[in-house]
This record gives sequence, structure tokens and C-alpha cells, in this order.
Amino acid sequence: MRVFDVIERKKNRAELTREELRFFCRAVASEEATDSQIAAFCMAVLLNGMTDRECANLTLAMTESGETLPRPQGGGVFADKHSTGGVSDSTTLVLVPVLSALGVKCAKLSGRGLAHTGGTLDKMESFGCRVDLSPEEFEEQVQTIGAAVAGQTKSTVPADKRMYAVRDVTATVDSVPLIASSVMSKKLASFADIILLDVKYGSGAFMKREKDAETLARLMVSIGKTANRRVSAAITRMDSPLGDNVGCNLEARECVEVLKGKRNDLAELSLFHCAKILRAARGVSEEEGLRLAKECIASGNALEQLEKIVRAQGGDGRSVRDETRLPLAKNVREIRADREGWLSVDALILGTACAELGGGRLKEGDEIDHTVGYSLKKRAGDHVKKGEVLALEYSNQKKTALAERAFGITAERPAQKPLVYSFIE
Amino acid sequence: MRVFDVIERKKNRAELTREELRFFCRAVASEEATDSQIAAFCMAVLLNGMTDRECANLTLAMTESGETLPRPQGGGVFADKHSTGGVSDSTTLVLVPVLSALGVKCAKLSGRGLAHTGGTLDKMESFGCRVDLSPEEFEEQVQTIGAAVAGQTKSTVPADKRMYAVRDVTATVDSVPLIASSVMSKKLASFADIILLDVKYGSGAFMKREKDAETLARLMVSIGKTANRRVSAAITRMDSPLGDNVGCNLEARECVEVLKGKRNDLAELSLFHCAKILRAARGVSEEEGLRLAKECIASGNALEQLEKIVRAQGGDGRSVRDETRLPLAKNVREIRADREGWLSVDALILGTACAELGGGRLKEGDEIDHTVGYSLKKRAGDHVKKGEVLALEYSNQKKTALAERAFGITAERPAQKPLVYSFIE
Repeated sequence: MRVFDVIERKKNRAELTREELRFFCRAVASEEATDSQIAAFCMAVLLNGMTDRECANLTLAMTESGETLPRPQGGGVFADKHSTGGVSDSTTLVLVPVLSALGVKCAKLSGRGLAHTGGTLDKMESFGCRVDLSPEEFEEQVQTIGAAVAGQTKSTVPADKRMYAVRDVTATVDSVPLIASSVMSKKLASFADIILLDVKYGSGAFMKREKDAETLARLMVSIGKTANRRVSAAITRMDSPLGDNVGCNLEARECVEVLKGKRNDLAELSLFHCAKILRAARGVSEEEGLRLAKECIASGNALEQLEKIVRAQGGDGRSVRDETRLPLAKNVREIRADREGWLSVDALILGTACAELGGGRLKEGDEIDHTVGYSLKKRAGDHVKKGEVLALEYSNQKKTALAERAFGITAERPAQKPLVYSFIE
Repeated sequence: MRVFDVIERKKNRAELTREELRFFCRAVASEEATDSQIAAFCMAVLLNGMTDRECANLTLAMTESGETLPRPQGGGVFADKHSTGGVSDSTTLVLVPVLSALGVKCAKLSGRGLAHTGGTLDKMESFGCRVDLSPEEFEEQVQTIGAAVAGQTKSTVPADKRMYAVRDVTATVDSVPLIASSVMSKKLASFADIILLDVKYGSGAFMKREKDAETLARLMVSIGKTANRRVSAAITRMDSPLGDNVGCNLEARECVEVLKGKRNDLAELSLFHCAKILRAARGVSEEEGLRLAKECIASGNALEQLEKIVRAQGGDGRSVRDETRLPLAKNVREIRADREGWLSVDALILGTACAELGGGRLKEGDEIDHTVGYSLKKRAGDHVKKGEVLALEYSNQKKTALAERAFGITAERPAQKPLVYSFIE
């Protein structure tokens, strides 16, 4: 078998076998396959598609191309939640403390923000945390306090890393089987028993339409089943920012606010995810799961658990107790309504505006400014009067003309799409 | 515009504009585009196709990516003949002396053999010729004696060179628009007024079926028209070797034999091409063109012209007068009929057997042995008796088990396909 033959068969619309996909992914990981061969393969998959079985085999082959994390000693149920990326989505930093305080272990491997989307690792760094834990540190922390949030190591799913870098420059990112296998290959490389996928839809999400997000979600759940994991997926709205803040320190502050009792869409979605995972992990009803999660927040246990995690990773525990210790940029500008009407807030534009302020990355590896961003004073769906403050912009010198364009005001009340469109398991 | 955007549009089945294709080819030539981007583009073209206009624009953009040869001073009509590659096809070395002796200038840029196919440059080297003429040497020789046969320089159509190297490893060679643009971009980089394409069909050709060869031919003729050149195409048989010899010196010998009056399919096809080109170049009828070409051979003028070309390029003129001066390998083996019946000779297998003897290249840049090969004593379509000699194998040590498999003998007379299937102009 040659890499050439695998490409040739996919080009000719054949269903690739497990052996062929294993061979291909090994060649990708070992750098035997050239970038041009990866690109041709990805374009052929994008245009010719893959069967569900083929995509599951690709995913398993990608996972097998690298090292998988060993399951920590000490038993217990491990849960993982993965979002396909959005704006003002800090559910991980709410959910991990709640779940781990309730005895569900969270060994969370997260990513960084890119383009308009934010990343959990950047927000962990807002608290001063280290996120480059060694596998030993990671395992020990999970054993000791039940939770850790860190970045993936280089040896995890190397085939995905090469394939993603190639897809990024060859217009082959938007292939459902390639997205599904990329996400799931990393999920399967960890030892989570329960995996909850949060598949976003809307302007700020990769998938603009509910139905496309659902197609992707179904495929990923099916891959999870092939790999004998308990995988479910929520299709959730990402047309406007999920929380009230965009920017690392602002979002880190908001996590603490939610763990102190603030209620908004970010809190609601975090609790929804917690209830689903508690049901799966502890066999309770969803209602009971929701009650447990709310109680965990009300009792202060969740906040205490976040402080433990932050301290364990070398961060500043005081900033969890008093989130206003997290600094914000000094130049504050008010964005006001230019007319009366019903407000919409575009997640893609606001996220991009934040990136332009220096709060996000235009390309992987860029440094970011944690102190800049936007704090919404009005929410999408609110009725606003002319001159009312819609948001505050925190910036350091840089200007962006984009932010204003994120806010739309219409005379007629726009239809609100559901926060959770559907749930697949 | 970015390379990414061009790929994205082709992926989405858009018809690319002239400007987009120019931008892409410039980026390929300047190495701004990565190999992975070229591969993704080629796979998208292969799977989504191109309109004829789009393919013509791609071709022109490829040609413009490099230097084009300046037209030599002194006027005259320039003709070029291009074969898509076959076995025992030495028509160029028959046609160039005939046409240039008749006043049609031939500034021929040729290639080398690869895999089972032979190459004109290799046969020129059989006569001891240099083929690395500088543009100035090339121009001067064309002015002086009306003909030159040399290799392309590195600066000719650099976009094609990179694209071809990528296509070769990414299973994207067999795309009709990519083949057509590759061939025609090189033809258009020269100054030929009349271009005759010899598009082969059959086992020894890239296109196995007549209809596919015709599709390719029609596209190339249409590209030529867009570029305001007089382009025509003959669809010709390549299931068995065209001439009676396979291997450089054997084929060089046979060119001389044909110019001395030998008649076989090689002579017939060469005369056919000459007649077509003379009709276009001199406005005579095809019958008159054929008569002129035959007379040119019968008078010895064509042979004398080949000697002039060979001497001008530093070769051994005596080997043109006495072709048996071209050495053959010492080990001669007879291949005999193992039964009685009708003979078929597979061009692909015999060409590959010659390459295995060292007479052809397995990969570009390989050295080859000019003295080895096969001399056919019986032709495809002949009735042979058991034990009759079918061919002689000339080899130096190396053995191949392939040659025997090239010869098939059947009890029923197989249908002969036409030498020239169709002619498109």
C-alpha cells in the first residue's frame, strides 16, 4: 500500500477500509506522507464525502497515530465537555468546578482562542494558572482534587495536528467528516467515560445553521459509539455572545460571578450541561442533576473548588474570591444605541472586534492582551432606547471600527432562536 | 485575493476567472503557493471539472508564469508536433527533417522518455547530439538550417513544472483539464504557428479509450484557438508499438531506415502528419502534401537534412548515413512464438520491459542505456507459426520476465483498430 493509493481510492469514491486509514494516518504522523498528499486527501474527502463507518475508522486511526493519556489511578467517573467554539462561552470554567465538587472527575484538555473565538486556556491564564502541566502533574492533580484544565501535549493525535495545519491553508476545513474526526480523535485520546459535545450554531459558530450543526453532532455521537464511549451532543445557539462579556479577564470575572449566583444564558447553559453529565455519571434524573448543580453553586462549594483548581495550577486564588482583582484595560468607551428598538448582538463581529483590540489571535501562537474586550450592558432581544449604553469597550490604544457594527437595532422584535436547539445521544 | 480564495471557489464549483487563474499561477511559479495548496487545487479541478473557457484561461496563465521563446528573425512558418507519449514513436525525427527540408521551420522543444514511453531527446543523444542548446544557439540553428531539437529550459512554464511534480504524488494526473493545460501551456510558450497534436489511445497511451483521447484532443484544440494558434489533433492508435523497434539506438536506426524508404506504421503516421502540416503551412491539398513528403524522402533530401541537424547539434553525421554504426547491446535473445495464431503486441508491457532492461527511466533523471531494447520481427496482426522468431531482445546482463508477456497469440484474428481514429481541427 502507498499513500498515493489511498488518495486514489478516495478520489474514486471508494469507502476506505480501517487498514487503509490506519496506514494513511501513520504515514501522516511519521511525516512519510507529504503536505501535498494530505491536502489532496482532504479535498477528496471534502468533495466525495465519507460514510459514517469510514469516518469512525478515520477517527480511530487518527487517535492511534499518537499517545493516549493513561487513566489516573483511584477510579471514579471521568467527564469531558467540548465546545466547537464560540464567543463569550465560559461554560467549561463553570462546569468543571461544579462537577468535580460533586465527585465527577474532570481531566480537561482545552484549547486556546483563535480568530473571533475564545479559549479556556487563555481564561485559565487570566487567573495566573499554568496550563502546560506535564502528564504526571495532570494525573496527580486530577487524583488529588478531582479536576485539572491543561493544554494537549504535542504527542497527542499528531496526525490531526498536521492535517489541521494543511486544511487551514487549503480551504478544506469545512468538511463534516474532517471536522468530526478532528474533534473526536482528540476526545478519544483522553480517558473520559462521558463526553458531552456542545455543537454551536449561528453567526459566531463554525456551523451557521442548526441543521448543519445537528448533522455534525450526529456524526460525532456515532463515532463515539463506535469507540464505546458515552457521547452526547447539545446543539446550542451562538448567534449572539453566550455570556455578557467578551475578552479573557472579563470572561474570567464572569465565571466567578456565575459561581457566585449570577443568572444569564451562560449560567443556564452551564447548568444544562451539568445536569446532563450528572444524569449520565450518577444515574440521577436530569431534574435532580440540575438541583444538585444549583445547590453546589448556592453553597459556595463550586467557587471553593474553582479556587482549589486555580491554586493547584499556580494561579492567584484571591482573584477567584474577588474577581475584580483581574485587571481591565484603562481606556473605557461607551457604545450607545443610535436609535430606539430591539437589540441584536452579532457574536462573530464582536468576537472579531475583541481580537482586533488585541484580545484574540489572528493566527495561532499570537500573544494576546487579557485586559481588553467588551462588557455588554444590554442583551440581544432587549428593547433599548436611543442613547442607552449597550456595552463598554476596554482597550489599550488600539481602535476598532468593528464593534458598533456588532449591534443591530430594529423596529420589529426579532425572533429569538432557542438556546438549546436539540440534544442527541 | 489569496491562493486560499481561488481554491475555495474551485471547491465550490465556481468557474474561475482569468484574473484568479493568473494570480494562482503566478503564486505557484513564485513559490508563494504551498505544495499543499497546489494539491488541493488540482484535486478540486479533478473532481469538479473546468469549463473549456476556464481551462483555456488556466493554460494561458500557466504559459504567462514563465518566459516565452522569442520568435527567430528571418520570417517563415513554424510548425510543431506534439505526442502525448507512446512506445516506438519516432515520428518527430522523421517529420522534422522532411518538413524543414521542404521549407517549414521546426523549432522543436522535446522531452525525455519516462516509464514505458520513449523520448525524442534520448534518441537525439543516440546520434551523439547535444540537446541542451542555449536560447541563442537554438535560434541561430533554426535560422541557419530551419530546424533544431532541444529540451525546454527551466524558465519555461515554471507553474507547470511545480504542478506536475505535485500531481505525480497526489493521484491528480488523470484530469483532462489538467493534462490539456499542462501540454498546451508548453506548446504556447513556443512561437509555433501550426501545432499538430498526436493524441494517443490504447494500452501504451495515457488515454486507454479512443473517446477519452478525443475529449482531451478537442479541449486542447479549443485552447489553441483561444490563444489564436492553428492547432489540430490526430487521435492515433497506441495499443502496439508504432514502429518495429523499442529502445533508443534501435529507434534512432529505424528513423534513418524510414528516411531511406522503409514503409511501416511509423512511416505512414509520419507522412500523415507531414501532409497535414504542409497543407496548413503551404496551402496545398493534403494529397499534394503527402506527395511532397514522399518525394522529399525518395530524393534523399530528408536524410541529408537529418544529417545537417545532427551535425549542427554536435552529433555524428556518419551514423545518419550508416545507421548500423549506432551500437546495440551484445546479448541478443530470440523471443519465439509458443503456438500458431494471430499476434498481438502490447505496447505498455514491451515499453516497460525495455525500461527494466535499463533502456527507459523508472523516475525522472535516471540514466538510461541507449543500446538495449527490442526489435520486432513480426507485427501485431501478423499470423505466426509456432517457433517463429517474434522479436530480438538486446540486453546488457539485466533480465526481464516481462517481454514474453507482451506477445499474445490467439486462434481468432483480433480486430485491428485504425491507426488514425479521427482528426480534429
